[in-house]
Amino acid sequence: MIDLNADLGEGFGRWRLTDDEGLLSVVSSANVACGFHAGDPSTMRRVCAEAAARGVAVGAQVSYRDLAGFGRRAMDVPEDELADEVAYQIGALRVFAEAAGTRVAYVKPHGALYNRTVHDEAQARAVVAGTLLAGGGLPVLGLPGSLLLEAAGEAGLPAVAEAFADRGYTARGTLVPRREPGAVLHEPGAVVAQALDIALRGEVAAAGGGRVAAAARSLCLHGDTPGAVELARRVRRELEEAGVRIGAFA
Amino acid sequence: MIDLNADLGEGFGRWRLTDDEGLLSVVSSANVACGFHAGDPSTMRRVCAEAAARGVAVGAQVSYRDLAGFGRRAMDVPEDELADEVAYQIGALRVFAEAAGTRVAYVKPHGALYNRTVHDEAQARAVVAGTLLAGGGLPVLGLPGSLLLEAAGEAGLPAVAEAFADRGYTARGTLVPRREPGAVLHEPGAVVAQALDIALRGEVAAAGGGRVAAAARSLCLHGDTPGAVELARRVRRELEEAGVRIGAFA
Amino acid sequence: MIDLNADLGEGFGRWRLTDDEGLLSVVSSANVACGFHAGDPSTMRRVCAEAAARGVAVGAQVSYRDLAGFGRRAMDVPEDELADEVAYQIGALRVFAEAAGTRVAYVKPHGALYNRTVHDEAQARAVVAGTLLAGGGLPVLGLPGSLLLEAAGEAGLPAVAEAFADRGYTARGTLVPRREPGAVLHEPGAVVAQALDIALRGEVAAAGGGRVAAAARSLCLHGDTPGAVELARRVRRELEEAGVRIGAFA
Amino acid sequence: MIDLNADLGEGFGRWRLTDDEGLLSVVSSANVACGFHAGDPSTMRRVCAEAAARGVAVGAQVSYRDLAGFGRRAMDVPEDELADEVAYQIGALRVFAEAAGTRVAYVKPHGALYNRTVHDEAQARAVVAGTLLAGGGLPVLGLPGSLLLEAAGEAGLPAVAEAFADRGYTARGTLVPRREPGAVLHEPGAVVAQALDIALRGEVAAAGGGRVAAAARSLCLHGDTPGAVELARRVRRELEEAGVRIGAFA
Repeated sequence: MIDLNADLGEGFGRWRLTDDEGLLSVVSSANVACGFHAGDPSTMRRVCAEAAARGVAVGAQVSYRDLAGFGRRAMDVPEDELADEVAYQIGALRVFAEAAGTRVAYVKPHGALYNRTVHDEAQARAVVAGTLLAGGGLPVLGLPGSLLLEAAGEAGLPAVAEAFADRGYTARGTLVPRREPGAVLHEPGAVVAQALDIALRGEVAAAGGGRVAAAARSLCLHGDTPGAVELARRVRRELEEAGVRIGAFA
Repeated sequence: MIDLNADLGEGFGRWRLTDDEGLLSVVSSANVACGFHAGDPSTMRRVCAEAAARGVAVGAQVSYRDLAGFGRRAMDVPEDELADEVAYQIGALRVFAEAAGTRVAYVKPHGALYNRTVHDEAQARAVVAGTLLAGGGLPVLGLPGSLLLEAAGEAGLPAVAEAFADRGYTARGTLVPRREPGAVLHEPGAVVAQALDIALRGEVAAAGGGRVAAAARSLCLHGDTPGAVELARRVRRELEEAGVRIGAFA
Repeated sequence: MIDLNADLGEGFGRWRLTDDEGLLSVVSSANVACGFHAGDPSTMRRVCAEAAARGVAVGAQVSYRDLAGFGRRAMDVPEDELADEVAYQIGALRVFAEAAGTRVAYVKPHGALYNRTVHDEAQARAVVAGTLLAGGGLPVLGLPGSLLLEAAGEAGLPAVAEAFADRGYTARGTLVPRREPGAVLHEPGAVVAQALDIALRGEVAAAGGGRVAAAARSLCLHGDTPGAVELARRVRRELEEAGVRIGAFA
Repeated sequence: MIDLNADLGEGFGRWRLTDDEGLLSVVSSANVACGFHAGDPSTMRRVCAEAAARGVAVGAQVSYRDLAGFGRRAMDVPEDELADEVAYQIGALRVFAEAAGTRVAYVKPHGALYNRTVHDEAQARAVVAGTLLAGGGLPVLGLPGSLLLEAAGEAGLPAVAEAFADRGYTARGTLVPRREPGAVLHEPGAVVAQALDIALRGEVAAAGGGRVAAAARSLCLHGDTPGAVELARRVRRELEEAGVRIGAFA
């Protein structure tokens, strides 16, 4: 059994980015943008309602306050401030999740905050502190081996590891940096094969050859490129045909 | 018995406006800015914590999304969108209220949204719809006779009327418009006298002479001018000396 | 001879909306978003560079400060403040226009500000005051009969009227309101025919029957719907085949 | 002869921070906030008008786009994007400077961008690239020895060094970090003495004893603390009494 998660609701006002309807028909967990890098209140409400109707778990995709940079520019936000910004976003999303009859079931940082909390201890602690502030003992979804998941575990929050069907892995089990060759798998068959490897065997082919462990409770899919939803749908279908049950971790 | 309410937490980041500590020692209800016209997450957390510690009720001071205009510029926000923006703000504040061991106990619109919902039916309905979306059957605080309180009542929410110790009243019981003479009472003695009139007799002296009804469950105090906290403190003291008990309505 | 204008650069950060490259191959005047309803600095620079390379005139598409509402929500901005906001936007765009070897050649309000300044005298004056503040005696592009063009003319600025190939006209020569039937022409042949009518005869078929004057120095094309650039290209081609020369008014 | 510079116009909408009138009566150069960390259009216009009336030079105080953090949180903005953001701010300010009959005479980065460009080569280059984009060969004001001034010099822009009357200096001539003792001089007499040292002798007392070179064409004064304007005024008076002429460098 594995969870499929994807980023949703990443438009803002007039702008749309993610194919929310398409993705909600595939994933078991929706990382919903909360207004800081994307996500206006009406989009948040609609995505929560649709997720609830389909039984998809709702997660708070928290971010730096950076609409202009889509949350992709790392920021030196002081620890206390960042914790409060994280809590604010969770609270805002919760109102729409609960109005839709569901709840915010987990927290996942977005973009630069996701990358930064892999190795920045203060910011990792801040995301966890903000999650604690929001109450409910919410699980934190992130990269295996990240300081974020370590901090979550130390705080008594469930730390949930995710893997990527479409990213290359190094022999050490980390992701191939985006600027290096092999960072992203473009061939659909390779993406599907890696998804099956992760779900069935907990390991993937490493970029330089050999295999490496990549155990994960959740598989992250992307939905912001042409054909992405189609590919996500195929990943799900082949996982199910291989006997893997798809279900939210939270 | 009467409630004293004031706007708090109306700074943003580096900027401060309201004397939050001073006001929290006087009022029984704190209208806390939620980030749309003012109010950053850290300020919201601090004000909620301090309010909880002092037993002051926390209300969501919801606003148009307008930091540059401090929420004082009326906006033609579509009804659905406005409802969602209101719910978003209530949710964001709720996280800090609950983390502080208290709760969001009521909703009060700020600035141009307060004024607009006196007579604009769609926006009045939107504020009520946003309040309903946020759940918990929260009371709405506003101007007696406003469409806002009417819509709240129709929706089954407690509609709480407030009066102003420092604003002039017309013979019809409405506020003297801000651009006319007599709109604001500047003399401290007159402010105190009007507060006592409202609390003890439910009526005030009208601008043109005579007296007019001004019954209210809550008295709105202002804290953003020099000497305002001192005056608020004096109003409270004289009310108590006159046998009026001060207590939150919510 | 007629000018073709369209809104460009209406993305923000990660989000794209308008097909800027496509439109720049068709129009003679580009209404470039300046950051208040859309338009980040890098997009502004790119659109100005491309416009300059193609000999397309650059205009400042000024707006209310409202990213969340895409400038489509009318705002009661005080006259002085609005003038300053308009000037700010013109100045910001000018830096990119001049760096590209061209200049800001005119001003056109966007969305709710466009609609509001048709009949709101204070806001019409404010847009003109902001344009004057920015210097250079820039022409103002707007709706014939609007208070905006009237105020521009009174201030000594060139007031340039535009017409719409894809909007229905009433017998009085005004646009059919968007919520009424016949507001928008959807059939490509009808759009082309109306463009030819405007350019060659200065009149169009009225919604209720009969013909009405619609003289204009510029024709506004839309580029944010599927097929819009194709249609714009066809309008231009048929105008040229009918002997109409396409050229910027500014 | 020395220049006195200070940050001005650092309010936003309803919020005020700097005593703009007071500072403009003291300084010869005004670093005007351009809207990204502070500074709304109306404040920019007012400060430019007042500066022009007093013969004070106007500089663009450019910043990261970060109202919530007052530009004090370093951001990993890509080089091209940052250059465009800098140019945008200069252009916006220029409109108000020129409307007031003066001009933008120099560029100085604010807060975290100031600190970051001391040692971050890409961001230093970006600020210089944005300044070049804005045209006019504007001088760049910054810390002696910073990569910012180095990049400015290499690009052929005047690189102007500033010193601080109220900051402690290390024996190497760098500023004592803010978290260490001796970072800030609080005693007015010490501030005045250091200002005289810088202006007359180009050197200051180092924190650990001994003296160190601190030559500078401009002296930075602070205006956002109580008594700051009084102190700035005294610094200016004592400099003038010691025969130092105060005048803008640009």
